[in-house]
Amino acid sequence: MSQYWSPAVRELTPYVPGEQPRERVIKLNTNENPYPPAPGVSTALRDYSTDHLRLYPDPTSRALRETLAATYGVNVEETFVGNGSDEVLAFAFQAFFCHGAPLDVPSITYSFYPVYANLYGVTLRKHPLNAKWEVDMDALASVTESSGVIFANPNAPTGHAHSLEAIETLLKRVTDRVVLIDEAYVDFGAESAVELVGRYPNLLVTGTFSKSRSLAGLRLGYAIGSQELIEGLQRVKDSFNSYPVDSLASLVGIEALKDKQHFDACRNNVITTRERTRQRLEQSGFEVLPSKANFILAQHPKFAGAQLFAGLRERGILVRHFNTDMLNNFLRITIGTDDEMDSLVEALEAICR
Amino acid sequence: MSQYWSPAVRELTPYVPGEQPRERVIKLNTNENPYPPAPGVSTALRDYSTDHLRLYPDPTSRALRETLAATYGVNVEETFVGNGSDEVLAFAFQAFFCHGAPLDVPSITYSFYPVYANLYGVTLRKHPLNAKWEVDMDALASVTESSGVIFANPNAPTGHAHSLEAIETLLKRVTDRVVLIDEAYVDFGAESAVELVGRYPNLLVTGTFSKSRSLAGLRLGYAIGSQELIEGLQRVKDSFNSYPVDSLASLVGIEALKDKQHFDACRNNVITTRERTRQRLEQSGFEVLPSKANFILAQHPKFAGAQLFAGLRERGILVRHFNTDMLNNFLRITIGTDDEMDSLVEALEAICR
Repeated sequence: MSQYWSPAVRELTPYVPGEQPRERVIKLNTNENPYPPAPGVSTALRDYSTDHLRLYPDPTSRALRETLAATYGVNVEETFVGNGSDEVLAFAFQAFFCHGAPLDVPSITYSFYPVYANLYGVTLRKHPLNAKWEVDMDALASVTESSGVIFANPNAPTGHAHSLEAIETLLKRVTDRVVLIDEAYVDFGAESAVELVGRYPNLLVTGTFSKSRSLAGLRLGYAIGSQELIEGLQRVKDSFNSYPVDSLASLVGIEALKDKQHFDACRNNVITTRERTRQRLEQSGFEVLPSKANFILAQHPKFAGAQLFAGLRERGILVRHFNTDMLNNFLRITIGTDDEMDSLVEALEAICR
Repeated sequence: MSQYWSPAVRELTPYVPGEQPRERVIKLNTNENPYPPAPGVSTALRDYSTDHLRLYPDPTSRALRETLAATYGVNVEETFVGNGSDEVLAFAFQAFFCHGAPLDVPSITYSFYPVYANLYGVTLRKHPLNAKWEVDMDALASVTESSGVIFANPNAPTGHAHSLEAIETLLKRVTDRVVLIDEAYVDFGAESAVELVGRYPNLLVTGTFSKSRSLAGLRLGYAIGSQELIEGLQRVKDSFNSYPVDSLASLVGIEALKDKQHFDACRNNVITTRERTRQRLEQSGFEVLPSKANFILAQHPKFAGAQLFAGLRERGILVRHFNTDMLNNFLRITIGTDDEMDSLVEALEAICR
């Protein structure tokens, strides 16, 4: 604690990301994609004339947004890009959720939301998940005096996804404030709400290139929403950093978006491996929540989460364990390659033997 | 204006960066370097295995910060990096300048500071420059009830730089709040205050790879200061975006820092061209403020700034004109190559003929 820190900054509890180990391990702790990005990414970087780097990027990231708009079937004015979806989410908190009333969130969801809330002085109203570990959409829609609604779909770290129909039911009820749906994991089998953007001006959908496009190292995220919401994000962005997306990130992002075949192959592989892993773990006595994401949340009736985590770690396998009351017994396991998941299952079987 | 925007966001007046034209022009409007980045940058990108991009970057950017620390002769714990120095400055506003009292700034300085102030609810107390267009250090040090001090050295858009001795005199007087010295342009002939960091725990120096290292397109900036100040920045960063610096930016930044020979050659070229341009413009009847930056601020006794700006633009030369009372008559001209500056001088002579 320093006398020089702003008072509010003294009170922050920063987000703690999963560790990035230096030694060789099977890394199933931060929901990275086990497959490389589209081959066009390598070619584009190899052929790039670095002389361009002496110039500032386009502050509006027009070329990347045009490709994004074409990919998702929306207008370019309905798109926004940022330095990772974490930055896009931070901008959204500031742009839309600082109205004085509480922001409605599920009690279990992406653990960065409470950190943003703290940073921007937003109060959270947390709604428990239902008995099936699902986001309680009815509870989110039933409140009054609210600054907005945010949740991840599929949700993290449960992996549960609501149908497009359920999302639209929520949107029909919540019209006076922004509903932000964080679709970081949507490409692994869930339905995207992007197609509702034209009809619901208060819907903001965010996404990332980190997961399904294998570009976590690049920091690229986006938002899709009505023009008025996009303009709100731009106001904050232009008061913070004129050029949050650098020239290389734009170039690489465009290449990733263009290669639909690679995208489909990678996500389908992840989906197949996820279902196979889930089966094997259930056969070994684990409870595995149904997941539409590139991770699963699993627990064993007889072995504590911390114990399993430590056992895996000893065997060179890194997963994520959340030290909270509700999630304490679970492991969140990223879906890697088939070989990696075989090693995981065998290690868990050995630990539980 | 949208009902969904947070009230404070409705009041923002975002920063407007210099334009990034698509057509071919002589571009002297955003203080970019006319020379390419270090040759090692090309090699590193060409040899980079894009498979790494599927993994998140190191959230602490350790390797880049170690190289930065070695370059500047400080400890790695005294370094911070971000997605452009604009992001670093934004974090600094939030970390250090939100104490309720006004923040002291020169009346003319980097025009993003008032935008940050607006974004974070900080009141600015503006101190006029002295008769020689220099930052009034005595005025900055003489106030009480202040949340901090910020200015650019060399200052923008005047180009004037205070000596290290003058900076230290200020630091001896201001000890109870952060003094942030924005050294975006320091490498073009001014003295850096980094060597004072060890003795003044309230000194934060920021810098950028955009200017002297020819990497505006990459978005990479840094701060150097006492460990307690760096920790303050990290608290904000970790509440905003775990990984603001992507893997490619780190790689490229390290290459740029390692090539001292290229760095020195480029900045020396810019300095030589600047002095040559200044002489030629003075011979043509312009007043040119003495500059230690990679730009000059110039005015003509008989021709208005807007007129000169428009005339240059017609001739395919882009410079920056600030539409404010105090700077209205000036042009801010980035130092390009000798050829570009010859074209500029000839164009201005033609306009003023």
